[in-house]
Amino acid sequence: MNIQGKHFRTIWLKTSHPSVVQIIDQRPLPHELVVEDIANVEEMAIAIKDMHLRGAGLIGAAAGYGMYLAALEAPQGSLEKAWAFLRKAGKQLKATRPTAVNLEWAVSQLLKAIMQAKGIDQIRGKALAAAQHIADEDAVFCQRIGEYGVKLIEEISERKSGETVNILTHCNAGWLAFVDYGTATAPIYRAQEMGIKVHVWVDETRPRNQGARLTAWELREQGIPHTIIVDNAGGHLMQHGLVDMVITGADRVTSSGDVANKIGTYLKALAAKDNDIPFYAALPSSTIDWSIRDGVKEIPIERRDTDEVKHISGLHQGEVKSVLLTPEGSPAANYAFDVTPARVVSGLITERGISAASEEGLLELYPEKKRQVQERG
Amino acid sequence: MNIQGKHFRTIWLKTSHPSVVQIIDQRPLPHELVVEDIANVEEMAIAIKDMHLRGAGLIGAAAGYGMYLAALEAPQGSLEKAWAFLRKAGKQLKATRPTAVNLEWAVSQLLKAIMQAKGIDQIRGKALAAAQHIADEDAVFCQRIGEYGVKLIEEISERKSGETVNILTHCNAGWLAFVDYGTATAPIYRAQEMGIKVHVWVDETRPRNQGARLTAWELREQGIPHTIIVDNAGGHLMQHGLVDMVITGADRVTSSGDVANKIGTYLKALAAKDNDIPFYAALPSSTIDWSIRDGVKEIPIERRDTDEVKHISGLHQGEVKSVLLTPEGSPAANYAFDVTPARVVSGLITERGISAASEEGLLELYPEKKRQVQERG
Repeated sequence: MNIQGKHFRTIWLKTSHPSVVQIIDQRPLPHELVVEDIANVEEMAIAIKDMHLRGAGLIGAAAGYGMYLAALEAPQGSLEKAWAFLRKAGKQLKATRPTAVNLEWAVSQLLKAIMQAKGIDQIRGKALAAAQHIADEDAVFCQRIGEYGVKLIEEISERKSGETVNILTHCNAGWLAFVDYGTATAPIYRAQEMGIKVHVWVDETRPRNQGARLTAWELREQGIPHTIIVDNAGGHLMQHGLVDMVITGADRVTSSGDVANKIGTYLKALAAKDNDIPFYAALPSSTIDWSIRDGVKEIPIERRDTDEVKHISGLHQGEVKSVLLTPEGSPAANYAFDVTPARVVSGLITERGISAASEEGLLELYPEKKRQVQERG
Repeated sequence: MNIQGKHFRTIWLKTSHPSVVQIIDQRPLPHELVVEDIANVEEMAIAIKDMHLRGAGLIGAAAGYGMYLAALEAPQGSLEKAWAFLRKAGKQLKATRPTAVNLEWAVSQLLKAIMQAKGIDQIRGKALAAAQHIADEDAVFCQRIGEYGVKLIEEISERKSGETVNILTHCNAGWLAFVDYGTATAPIYRAQEMGIKVHVWVDETRPRNQGARLTAWELREQGIPHTIIVDNAGGHLMQHGLVDMVITGADRVTSSGDVANKIGTYLKALAAKDNDIPFYAALPSSTIDWSIRDGVKEIPIERRDTDEVKHISGLHQGEVKSVLLTPEGSPAANYAFDVTPARVVSGLITERGISAASEEGLLELYPEKKRQVQERG
């Protein structure tokens, strides 16, 4: 998508030095745009671990490019030694964010791709092709999510005789979390291209404020009308007819359509239900965990550092500073995700189409998973 | 309640100089305790307007004491001139927070009290008595709310065989918002006195963070176990059996039991309902607006400065600093309250007892209002 009118992905090969990967460092956003050079697998591991980049799709692509950088560094001469080096690099990348499924998947894709290589040059060529394939596929899947999802927006726009469609989103499931387009934002960006009038209510998304920091920034750079609100406000807006639909991303979806996503998503889904407003989650199918059914019971919820609740950073006189929000001695708790039960989810927007949030709905789109689900019982 | 083990109210006459009123300045909390001397009605008007103090009950008491300070300043010699001075002071106080019902009520109580006075000394005496009566009554009503509300906590404690009762609260309806005890907190403080084990989940309550700043501070000074959470977390906690009941305050309650309270209250009530957890609002009957029935339709919701959403302040290297959280150019919206429909409210805890959130329930406790409600139609 666009930054200051120029097209960007979140990760790419440096044009002048294709042995260097460039990424948008998300940490100084929205206050400063920093493009970071990543010259080796070590630097990529740090970028993933220290969250210069985040988001399921982007983490996968970063792991792919990280393996490509490792291939450039791999010892020449002995294929055995090169493979050993790459396997070690893969382990290093996988250890950066142990719960990110895409990381493991991307590393294994890369290792598979280079297995048949007959020399170091082939290893490098195949690694690059595989890394670019992962990134391209991520972008294509998001684009398809946009194509399917925009139909929902179009219907509302027609029902409102072309008046602005108000969409609420939570957290950042935008292009910054993927390679391009994003998931929750893809239908919105597509609507803009089609000339449909949209306005986005952006939940700030405490504690890490990905909405206020990243989603608002993306939308602004893309010229999409939007308004930042505190996470408390959505219910009130829905009661007063100011929200036409909710679209969020998803961190993990069970085979029955339960949606694990950023903490607070469940509250918005309940409010949408209470006010007869459609609530959709948008996700590539890699997010679906076919091995589990009951999200509330089966998905473990990560507890993160309570400093994320007690402190927040922002711009003070041109510098980013962190401030303490709470009494020094008061304890805090920091649950990163919650689970929205399928019964309050209107549907799931995937790269193959829109499905009901149910096992039947999902298996209709992904019939190849029937056996796995049946065998699980 | 206690601060560093010493009993405080939020407003009192200075012991050494009873012509001066003292208040706790809430603005530097929780980082610093500042007791402010208020020497005249002008200073009290500033303290109310600039929110050195806030909260329905406390604003009423502050207006009462403000009128007492005005009586001390009133011209001697002519009773007519003294009354004119006091009427003007009343207008000044009422203009500080135009939507605060208690302000208007307290000023008229004071004006009524001094009407029969036969000299300036009598005016002063009657003004002081009336101001102290308002403060005392506020404290007594909160204490009664505690007595009635603690029965709900006691029942849960018995059902759990004495295990800790987990209570979630939103915003600050604690003693800092009243003269003493608070409303939502009164049953909790009473439970502590009775030796019932309680733990409080404190919603930080964006945008102004009254939970993280004030409620957490109060509970800590009182030695009540508590944990600060982001407003997004409550639903997840309820899904996992970590919340036994919700108690909030109320800014305005309709005759049918709809509850207007700090933005985000509605989302917690929906989550409580979805998880079969009792949701109570605690309030003195002065909060009930018998002239309206449908809260969502009839209660106008104040929109406040969007800087409250875009900036936040906290402690940085020993100094309170404000930081910008959002992209410079992104708009924000700031709705201060929302309305929780009676259908998701388990009950209302008042100074006369606990009532169902319904017209029948409320009129049973306040039969003297029957005629007003019937005549309204």
